[in-house]
Amino acid sequence: MMYKTIFHVDELEKWGLALGNVRNLVNYCEANGDKYQVEILANAAAVKELKEQISNHSEAIKGLDEKGVVFAACKNALKGHEIKETELFSFITVVPAGVIELTAKQNEGFAYIRP
Amino acid sequence: MMYKTIFHVDELEKWGLALGNVRNLVNYCEANGDKYQVEILANAAAVKELKEQISNHSEAIKGLDEKGVVFAACKNALKGHEIKETELFSFITVVPAGVIELTAKQNEGFAYIRP
Amino acid sequence: MMYKTIFHVDELEKWGLALGNVRNLVNYCEANGDKYQVEILANAAAVKELKEQISNHSEAIKGLDEKGVVFAACKNALKGHEIKETELFSFITVVPAGVIELTAKQNEGFAYIRP
Repeated sequence: MMYKTIFHVDELEKWGLALGNVRNLVNYCEANGDKYQVEILANAAAVKELKEQISNHSEAIKGLDEKGVVFAACKNALKGHEIKETELFSFITVVPAGVIELTAKQNEGFAYIRP
Repeated sequence: MMYKTIFHVDELEKWGLALGNVRNLVNYCEANGDKYQVEILANAAAVKELKEQISNHSEAIKGLDEKGVVFAACKNALKGHEIKETELFSFITVVPAGVIELTAKQNEGFAYIRP
Repeated sequence: MMYKTIFHVDELEKWGLALGNVRNLVNYCEANGDKYQVEILANAAAVKELKEQISNHSEAIKGLDEKGVVFAACKNALKGHEIKETELFSFITVVPAGVIELTAKQNEGFAYIRP
């Protein structure tokens, strides 16, 4: 079985919950021999957590990157919060518009979850 | 017409809103001769509301169970909040991982609503 | 490319974020020659923002209406908040049940985003 899911995080305080959600999905798949394609799309204030120097969830984010989870950040939100791409974790994908990414992924068959 | 929808509740304070949403869906279908398959999936702190002895929404939850609405609880969340399955309303379905359930149901054609 | 998305707003304080999200989607499509069908469905307390006389986001809402964005309000929520249809912006579509609209649109291939 293949689970394809995009998680949407737009509030800073939801990162802990979202990362726990993704860990549960990955753990389930690993325990059951299932495959997954998982992306976490951050827009609005939530992009601030992706600044490597100040992130409160560095270990969890890096651990999920190593599991193949894709982290994407909305370029509009980065601009709005005056964050440079060079300040982000090196593995972050910057997308032109978070809501376009959320729409495109659902069109490709990804389920949407908003923690 | 058949309406298939999974509602996602992960915040305790969203139960009132979510149950009202589901009631509106059921009422609409009953009034219009439509069919429905509706599930409410609780994860994170929201699972606490499914403990029969302490639930603040007992009547609403039992009423919707009688209308055929499925209530599911995430096993990871139950464990995290030290809730035994025997403490839940008897009709609760416990699923191994809430996010897997939300993904699987969307793959089966259920719409996703996050009150 | 055609982007079809329904945005769900049920909290009053999420209007600013939701309208910004929709503006980003419209701007992206205009800049890239893509088409869009976008609807903002308001239920619960969020319908109050659609009263023309008291809305805090009049300019943004009217501007997006002019861009072809559809604004829909749940009739149950209007009733619950004692709002008459004549008090709404003239271009608001009133739907019998917001959750039915959210389900129907997803069935028609709209992506769902909950800011």
